[in-house]
Amino acid sequence: MCKLSEKFFRLILREKIAMINFELSIPTKIIFGRGKIERLATELKNHGKRVLLAYGGNSLKKSGLYDKISNILTSNDIWFCELSGIKPNPSIKSVREGIRICREEKIDIILGAGGGSVIDCIKAIAAGIHYQGDPWDFFTGKARIGKVLPVAAILTLAATGSESNGGCVITNEETEEKLPFVHPSLKPVFSILDPENTFSVPPHQTAAGTADIMSHCIEQYFSKAEETFVQDRLTEAILKTCIHYGPIAMQEPENYHARANLMWASTLALNGILAAGKEGDWATHMIEHKVSAVNDLTHGTGLAIITPHWMTEVLSPENADKFVDFAVNVFHVVHDGDKLRTAREGIRRLSDFFRLLKIPASLSEAGFAADEKKLSRMAEDIVKYGPVGRFKQLDKNAVLRILKAAY
Amino acid sequence: MCKLSEKFFRLILREKIAMINFELSIPTKIIFGRGKIERLATELKNHGKRVLLAYGGNSLKKSGLYDKISNILTSNDIWFCELSGIKPNPSIKSVREGIRICREEKIDIILGAGGGSVIDCIKAIAAGIHYQGDPWDFFTGKARIGKVLPVAAILTLAATGSESNGGCVITNEETEEKLPFVHPSLKPVFSILDPENTFSVPPHQTAAGTADIMSHCIEQYFSKAEETFVQDRLTEAILKTCIHYGPIAMQEPENYHARANLMWASTLALNGILAAGKEGDWATHMIEHKVSAVNDLTHGTGLAIITPHWMTEVLSPENADKFVDFAVNVFHVVHDGDKLRTAREGIRRLSDFFRLLKIPASLSEAGFAADEKKLSRMAEDIVKYGPVGRFKQLDKNAVLRILKAAY
Repeated sequence: MCKLSEKFFRLILREKIAMINFELSIPTKIIFGRGKIERLATELKNHGKRVLLAYGGNSLKKSGLYDKISNILTSNDIWFCELSGIKPNPSIKSVREGIRICREEKIDIILGAGGGSVIDCIKAIAAGIHYQGDPWDFFTGKARIGKVLPVAAILTLAATGSESNGGCVITNEETEEKLPFVHPSLKPVFSILDPENTFSVPPHQTAAGTADIMSHCIEQYFSKAEETFVQDRLTEAILKTCIHYGPIAMQEPENYHARANLMWASTLALNGILAAGKEGDWATHMIEHKVSAVNDLTHGTGLAIITPHWMTEVLSPENADKFVDFAVNVFHVVHDGDKLRTAREGIRRLSDFFRLLKIPASLSEAGFAADEKKLSRMAEDIVKYGPVGRFKQLDKNAVLRILKAAY
Repeated sequence: MCKLSEKFFRLILREKIAMINFELSIPTKIIFGRGKIERLATELKNHGKRVLLAYGGNSLKKSGLYDKISNILTSNDIWFCELSGIKPNPSIKSVREGIRICREEKIDIILGAGGGSVIDCIKAIAAGIHYQGDPWDFFTGKARIGKVLPVAAILTLAATGSESNGGCVITNEETEEKLPFVHPSLKPVFSILDPENTFSVPPHQTAAGTADIMSHCIEQYFSKAEETFVQDRLTEAILKTCIHYGPIAMQEPENYHARANLMWASTLALNGILAAGKEGDWATHMIEHKVSAVNDLTHGTGLAIITPHWMTEVLSPENADKFVDFAVNVFHVVHDGDKLRTAREGIRRLSDFFRLLKIPASLSEAGFAADEKKLSRMAEDIVKYGPVGRFKQLDKNAVLRILKAAY
């Protein structure tokens, strides 16, 4: 694992602490709302003349967005070529292919149209252009980032927050690894967020996206830093938004209010605001990255399955206050004075909510199986670089208990 | 009034609407926490070699911060000169003086050490350097902004949010006007937010600062845009932070948690996040600007006095839902089904809270008087360019009722 991501996910545990010193800048220009694609040509031209348009599969063409984008580029004399077929859990192979194209075609800016996978992929491409080795080196910590290409996004899925941060997660099928890399220079220069571009997202993807946003909130909420009152209340605000609009967006895919709130929530959940002054936990993400690298599971679905089991594993009398806050402030649980009971009720409500979103309650329900030996090997891989989690450190046995509960 | 600020404060009233399209970038690098002044020299050097250090009065010297700053500049071979004596409700005269110095000394970057007044003042200076006319022209709409100097801040008061937005408010004593001007290019390039730099803020200033933050929240909360769920919950989070920590910071001036939460809340309340997708009201600010231009009253104190009377004036059965949300979500009022009663209870709790902060309940209690004729003239001036307020439009009579109630 690279040093940066190691720092991001595993920062050395400290004693209980006040708000932590931080530095934060959120320069990505968010261009939000109906019809905002009208800004595309002008914004692109600020950064160059030759564009790589990157996207996933057919959904962009089916929804008509591909035609809209290519018409805008063509009618504004913006030259572009394409990288398509970027998969969920984007592969290092797509990154390598993108780098090759950018070099050959002397690309000025990479435009990703899609969800977090596409945006993550173009960030890794942007990082790799001026590096002569293999881009996987950034993820293993072998290479340090230098000059990058600018990237921009047209978001089509409310989920990862990649549209306004400097993080990306790439999968290497050969090594069965899924690793993160974060650098401020990879923040998109602009991102177009039109909620109507998420109208065609099917219910199960809407559910997974909502769970992804909520997981980002939860990872940052549970922190050893104390008296992070403003951050905690803000995080609860985003969670309540997901709880309110997730089910509506599933039932009424073209409800603008629901899509707009979820889309903006996805950005706010991981643009640095909620993390400022705190150390997040991120053990659930570490575990899920392994699970979805092995199973090719939708990231948000995996997070929703694992999160309640992570909560049950780490809850203790010493940290129950945080769980009580979560239960009372997010799910309106009435606190009867018994902290552990109230905490457990909060966890139960979270599980119930994911069930309401029709997310499978376990990995086996999602169609994946694993025997004791495989689970043990997975747990070993997850703690390969040391215990995971900052709110509570988890060793191999703790991770194994969570995996068993989740399967 | 200049066109930009007119747009900012008085946007044409529309029918009830969904989340509004917006564009948002928050590039100011926030450098937050204890001892973070260590970053000062490095950050300044990114922008040039010749610095204008701007500040208010003696408090900077008494607190020792002036010595700290000048030592850092000197020991890092950064040349600097000074503009001191910037007053609360900063005057256009200080702006003119700053412009003269910047031109004579070929300044590269202006560093303001102080609260909102100092930071507002240096923004107006930065705007005026390359304009050959009088800087007041920006405020009256006569001039448009061109090239600006970079500005940076060392914040010493949690209140205005000026440390990460492009707004400034300047007073012209000759015309008895206090006018705002907003432009994205005036956002500070970096702001150092060390909560310890607010330990020496006396209780009444702490109260006024807390009220200022809350007023920014309230101005943005009450908006005709509907289903701005995520923005509204975020705004409530900031309000709750003020309610929780304002009294603590007054009683324990060196409570780091309280100072840190209030400081970060002040920035978040007016960096664009809460406003994104909504039209705020801002009538209370329009009224207070007149009141404090005439009386030289602390801005936050004026806002705290006027806000409950604004609420009472605009509350109606048609808009009571928003007031019910405010009462229930911010002050935990139990909603008994009678919307107007619940709404009024929320207003009462807000007044009570300001009284808890030892803010005078009226302008006369604060030592200011005005006869019928003077109030009428003030009301006339306030609506000189048309009705104020977007949540509810207020004509001269409505403004006069608020003024009478506040005096």
